[in-house]
Amino acid sequence: MMRRLATRMPDFLATLDVLLAFDHTTDEGIERTVAKILTQVRQQGDAAVLDYTQRFDGLAASTMAELSLSPTELAAALDALPTAQRQALEAAAARVRSYHERQKAESWSYTEADGTRLGQKITPLDRVGLYVPGGKAAYPSSVLMNALPAKVAGVGELIMVVPTPRGEKNALVLAAAHLAGVDRVFTIGGAQAVAALAYGTQTIPQVDKIVGPGNAYVAAAKRRVFGTVGIDMIAGPSEVLVIADASANPDWVAMDLFAQAEHDEMAQSILLCPDVGFIDRVAASIEKLLPTMPRRAVIEASLKGRGALIQVADLDEACTIANRIAPEHLELAVAEPQPLVEKIRHAGAIFIGHYASESLGDYCAGPNHVLPTSRSARFSSPLGVYDFQKRSSLIEVSAAGAQTLGPIAATLAHGEGLTAHARAAELRIKL
Amino acid sequence: MMRRLATRMPDFLATLDVLLAFDHTTDEGIERTVAKILTQVRQQGDAAVLDYTQRFDGLAASTMAELSLSPTELAAALDALPTAQRQALEAAAARVRSYHERQKAESWSYTEADGTRLGQKITPLDRVGLYVPGGKAAYPSSVLMNALPAKVAGVGELIMVVPTPRGEKNALVLAAAHLAGVDRVFTIGGAQAVAALAYGTQTIPQVDKIVGPGNAYVAAAKRRVFGTVGIDMIAGPSEVLVIADASANPDWVAMDLFAQAEHDEMAQSILLCPDVGFIDRVAASIEKLLPTMPRRAVIEASLKGRGALIQVADLDEACTIANRIAPEHLELAVAEPQPLVEKIRHAGAIFIGHYASESLGDYCAGPNHVLPTSRSARFSSPLGVYDFQKRSSLIEVSAAGAQTLGPIAATLAHGEGLTAHARAAELRIKL
Repeated sequence: MMRRLATRMPDFLATLDVLLAFDHTTDEGIERTVAKILTQVRQQGDAAVLDYTQRFDGLAASTMAELSLSPTELAAALDALPTAQRQALEAAAARVRSYHERQKAESWSYTEADGTRLGQKITPLDRVGLYVPGGKAAYPSSVLMNALPAKVAGVGELIMVVPTPRGEKNALVLAAAHLAGVDRVFTIGGAQAVAALAYGTQTIPQVDKIVGPGNAYVAAAKRRVFGTVGIDMIAGPSEVLVIADASANPDWVAMDLFAQAEHDEMAQSILLCPDVGFIDRVAASIEKLLPTMPRRAVIEASLKGRGALIQVADLDEACTIANRIAPEHLELAVAEPQPLVEKIRHAGAIFIGHYASESLGDYCAGPNHVLPTSRSARFSSPLGVYDFQKRSSLIEVSAAGAQTLGPIAATLAHGEGLTAHARAAELRIKL
Repeated sequence: MMRRLATRMPDFLATLDVLLAFDHTTDEGIERTVAKILTQVRQQGDAAVLDYTQRFDGLAASTMAELSLSPTELAAALDALPTAQRQALEAAAARVRSYHERQKAESWSYTEADGTRLGQKITPLDRVGLYVPGGKAAYPSSVLMNALPAKVAGVGELIMVVPTPRGEKNALVLAAAHLAGVDRVFTIGGAQAVAALAYGTQTIPQVDKIVGPGNAYVAAAKRRVFGTVGIDMIAGPSEVLVIADASANPDWVAMDLFAQAEHDEMAQSILLCPDVGFIDRVAASIEKLLPTMPRRAVIEASLKGRGALIQVADLDEACTIANRIAPEHLELAVAEPQPLVEKIRHAGAIFIGHYASESLGDYCAGPNHVLPTSRSARFSSPLGVYDFQKRSSLIEVSAAGAQTLGPIAATLAHGEGLTAHARAAELRIKL
């Protein structure tokens, strides 16, 4: 069912590039709609938010108070969960928190011989907005993965927005918000929620950064408010690349490809393997296991449309191809994964060994599941505590230091034709 | 000449907000032009770059080889500098390099009791493009500040583009490029240079990230290629906020305000001071010193249009206002600056004490002079080594670890309706 490729094919690299291509181009209709919503919310505040929420979510509210959830309601959602779900959510939250604690950066400085002191001061963001989609893509795990790094960073106030079309709330999402320490929740969504967070309204305070996944309208709105506030990466379709050798279990590999493919039809699952016999066994497992999957149709569309089983010359070549793909998720399902880890330069997350299935990382291993997609692992990183802290340079110059630095700065400033810069340095030089 | 404000005025905060407002809105004409240039370069590669370079820079070249500078030419530019300039550039480069060495992040991991290992692998970017403006804003210091963090991070190849309209080259810029270790230089600019770096051409290799300042066309092009490659922040006008008390030297403060203002008419210089007598002395220094400035007209336009001398109740209130402004540069020209440093949450760089003039930081103190503008210090950081390194999560799960993590992941996956995720975890559980 999945396409079979081999790196020895004449046009392999061109074929691979076509398979990987994902067009980020914007939809002009969406752009116009979003531009209008942003302007309306910026100008009219709460009134525009109430209006759009009625129109788009079928939720009639006359005040913003009706669109906010109380801490009591969030706590009740957690209390009402079945014990197994509650315990799983708590265990996942504890592991994610513990991993992210190791990402906290600390302020640093050093003092030079003449008393000049240089460094960086690290400060958490004051206020962050967390977008959580409503409907089918409402994932409590996503709430944990976005909220916990912000809280670990020390963000002062974390405000969640989540649309509840026709009033439908997702109890697991609310429970996760409570567990993660979300401070306030508004049941609004779409571009109007992004606008409210970016500009502030009478009720919703302006935030400094907006994170979290959303549909095309949410993505377009985030792109447009970038600069006024910070944003996280705009995610493309999710991807997994599995590098396997004959030591892997074909059922496990097949299921890991399914797990990626079940997200949506644009998700991408690719296998790289030097052993054609093993590829055949994975193909057989796929045929065998696919009928057992509730989301079979989505999986099949994704695997057929965007998936591939690729025979490579050897594991070395697999690493070269992996670096070209720069996948969001990379599984190393091989007998000796460590030498491969050393060769990988570009991947959002590297799952090492047969037991490290991506789904463990998605939920509870500890590392973040918000990862760079569409080859952006070449230049960007998993969501982390560092996304919720920022740095200020510290420059303390002693009187002696100004005598050394002044002439250097003045010479360079004169070279750039910036006389006031030069004079500012020269005034501090003692004659 | 500069407007005088006081925080006790009834509409002070509203007045301040108007003064700070800077509209990022895009120019539709520029957007259309840039979109066309990007498409042409993407489709036609070198030919389009040659064509635009002839049209926009008046530089007729028939091959890309004519638009590239050899390492010999860069080295010669450094050798040809007057000794004082060369030594100043070398001293600045050494200090900037030394400071940035302290920003290098290292890979880390930890192993849990059951053998599961978690961490992050840090990797430098493979290839980075550095945009350097031609003409009046061609600053060698900017080359050092953008190139050195990339080289310290370990970036494999650093490609500089700099337009040379009608063939005019800036020797200081080329010397700085050589000193900073730039690997290749092309004499191209504008949106066509950004497109060439983002997509690659027959001659110019595709990069992973583009950094460096540029005009409105360059900024629009960077915004559009973001996602295909990484970009740095799009800078707004440069700003300084000086907090001074009566212990400061009014001439020094006036000159520091000038140094900011001389960049361009949109630059912003603001003074906060609790002592009205000192504000009067600064105003007098401004009147006295302004006629001595070669860039007097620009300084005057900037100070009149966007500057302010603001009386605050006390230094505590000055810090509150500073946090609201979140300035790019903050000078603490007070007798006891340290308590103020503690209170500052949002600033690109904090210059501490009377001797720390911003111009020392601009050239040679060591910290980067590429800083967040337009209140974005609320959520972003100075350019640094961390902008040229990225992280990959490491997730190695032991057989024992899979027994603990599997049931948690499976429970949560079932809760989200993702059966393949659950099954992938369950398959690894030993019965």
